[in-house]
Amino acid sequence: MQEELMGKIMEEVMKKLDTNDKDEKIETKSKTSKKYCGLTEFVGTAIGDTIGLVIANVDYTLHEFMKLDKKYRSIGIVGGRTGAGPQIMAADEAVKATNTEIITIELPRDTKGGAGHGSLIMFGAEDVSDARRAVEVTLKELDRTFGDVYGNEAGHLEFQYTARASYACEKAFGAPIGKSFGLIVGAPAAIGVLIADVAVKAANVDIISYSSPAQGSSFSNEVTLAVSGDSGAVRQSVIAAREVGIKILATLGEEPKTDTTPYI
Amino acid sequence: MQEELMGKIMEEVMKKLDTNDKDEKIETKSKTSKKYCGLTEFVGTAIGDTIGLVIANVDYTLHEFMKLDKKYRSIGIVGGRTGAGPQIMAADEAVKATNTEIITIELPRDTKGGAGHGSLIMFGAEDVSDARRAVEVTLKELDRTFGDVYGNEAGHLEFQYTARASYACEKAFGAPIGKSFGLIVGAPAAIGVLIADVAVKAANVDIISYSSPAQGSSFSNEVTLAVSGDSGAVRQSVIAAREVGIKILATLGEEPKTDTTPYI
Amino acid sequence: MQEELMGKIMEEVMKKLDTNDKDEKIETKSKTSKKYCGLTEFVGTAIGDTIGLVIANVDYTLHEFMKLDKKYRSIGIVGGRTGAGPQIMAADEAVKATNTEIITIELPRDTKGGAGHGSLIMFGAEDVSDARRAVEVTLKELDRTFGDVYGNEAGHLEFQYTARASYACEKAFGAPIGKSFGLIVGAPAAIGVLIADVAVKAANVDIISYSSPAQGSSFSNEVTLAVSGDSGAVRQSVIAAREVGIKILATLGEEPKTDTTPYI
Repeated sequence: MQEELMGKIMEEVMKKLDTNDKDEKIETKSKTSKKYCGLTEFVGTAIGDTIGLVIANVDYTLHEFMKLDKKYRSIGIVGGRTGAGPQIMAADEAVKATNTEIITIELPRDTKGGAGHGSLIMFGAEDVSDARRAVEVTLKELDRTFGDVYGNEAGHLEFQYTARASYACEKAFGAPIGKSFGLIVGAPAAIGVLIADVAVKAANVDIISYSSPAQGSSFSNEVTLAVSGDSGAVRQSVIAAREVGIKILATLGEEPKTDTTPYI
Repeated sequence: MQEELMGKIMEEVMKKLDTNDKDEKIETKSKTSKKYCGLTEFVGTAIGDTIGLVIANVDYTLHEFMKLDKKYRSIGIVGGRTGAGPQIMAADEAVKATNTEIITIELPRDTKGGAGHGSLIMFGAEDVSDARRAVEVTLKELDRTFGDVYGNEAGHLEFQYTARASYACEKAFGAPIGKSFGLIVGAPAAIGVLIADVAVKAANVDIISYSSPAQGSSFSNEVTLAVSGDSGAVRQSVIAAREVGIKILATLGEEPKTDTTPYI
Repeated sequence: MQEELMGKIMEEVMKKLDTNDKDEKIETKSKTSKKYCGLTEFVGTAIGDTIGLVIANVDYTLHEFMKLDKKYRSIGIVGGRTGAGPQIMAADEAVKATNTEIITIELPRDTKGGAGHGSLIMFGAEDVSDARRAVEVTLKELDRTFGDVYGNEAGHLEFQYTARASYACEKAFGAPIGKSFGLIVGAPAAIGVLIADVAVKAANVDIISYSSPAQGSSFSNEVTLAVSGDSGAVRQSVIAAREVGIKILATLGEEPKTDTTPYI
């Protein structure tokens, strides 16, 4: 009878411990989800520890030190710890939808111990409401643009596609405006080399840029390929790379997973 | 009755598990606190995984490869995984208090998966006892200079102030010697942009330097502003930035906290 | 009697929890150990989240963007999240043993939140079977070359020695081909400075290169010294640095440990 009792108790304890664990995860999520502060400069937060801010009128002297175009004193700021591609693609939609310009894109070496970049993107506007709108659109797009970011304990993969590239893709990768554009990223970098090769062999696309740890990145452990061309070809190229990338990264750990929903 | 027993047992188990967790935390802390080794080169350790060392007479050939000033063969070395500002401000007090010179300050991209820098600072001295003294002062000052470093799971903020900048602040940030000096750091970098603007608007200070992920940092996900000017103005500027910074960083996670005690 | 029962149950629960922990660790290990995928480009995985891949015929346009020597269209790729020295030393054995050339070595800032580098190494070959063989040899050597990598929660140390350096050591560190070669790495960088000095004082060796966070590294928090010379002297130099390094790093945390077996 003691055996039976012990069995039951063990079951309960394990159930309880499991529940505790789950509680913790949910709590963490809700903590980072949506919090507000009274400041007018605050716009919002999003996935990837991304924050959106505006400054209506940047201090004149600071503006010079920041080496920004004198034309714009109202700026929108989007920056995150994890992700550069998703924020850039989201900002690309924002410049299409608003009366703003991309004035700077900087890519820190980050991802909180991961292999990739964080991001700092600034929009310039004549009116702060335009800057705010651009930041809002960017934050809203992020759930979608994180859709084809796949990770496990050993690395990550990122795939992006747009039928019509705009000024953010041009600024960051030299993408031709108005043309179809695709992005293929693999980390550790060795995986990026392989899927870059898969991507260009899978369809007739033009390579715009290729970056590796010591060339064109911030010493991140990634290889990034940017391609352009016919819409169908770019999509096919990105999808082929994704298929191989997921299989390869899985050999180093768990099945790579996205935190949101694939869109390509 | 079994129900009651089970309840009691669950309580005990949870208490026990809780205790185990606490034990672990205390143990971790004591492990990293103060350990010694028999080597004469070892001076001590401090917060931020900082270590202090001296070399009485650097090997001649190595000295050349290190590109150090030939004048000093005795060097004091302070380096940490987390923090550049705190170590620089502490070293600034050390050069004031000792017969040494700052011969090099290097800022690795580090903070153990965080968004900022680590540090490597060297003092040159004609006598090893002077180098040792400088290292000792630096390590001792660190608890204070970490006082206005605030962090949460999403990023960190750092604020520094001195009424009279010395050679470490000059070497690292170009601070005018003998004048009041302040440092404002925000990570992710987007937060740093905002609080830099707040700082310069809050009081009549001179900007000495502005650095961002791609300009003047080691690709860290920080924006750093260094200001100089009248003592009251610099203090007011730093305090204003701190107030806004803490509110903003809190939107991405927990309330930002310092590990020691604010001093500004 | 209830007391006794409770005691027994607590014991069981703790045992069970302990077992769970152990299970998890073993599981993690087996997960990352050996997984395969159907792709012909996949060669294998190894310690340090290292992956080995081959491309039989790199796409012509991509080849140009990668700035690779036109001579080789078949490439072998080895890349990891943790470790540059171990992969370079392993690749050094691979070029000795196969009909390949080292065409590129890049060192990202990585180690998954640690203080050091990851790696991306490419072999060029006329035949893909040669490239594959080089990758296989490299992966196989990694357990050995990780032998004198010691880490704890605060940093790491790395020591390498070869009686006869080949093309990988030449490419990465400028090592004279065919001569004895040694590598001394300490992180945080302050420790690297000290053990570099110990190494050159311990034996009559030639310094080939010295790199620090801001000079010759990828802003990693390491100092790396490469030495050459008489075989006995190089070994003695490396061993002396190892002895001091382990003592010093231990002051910041646990006793530094290797994940495999020391070979020097």
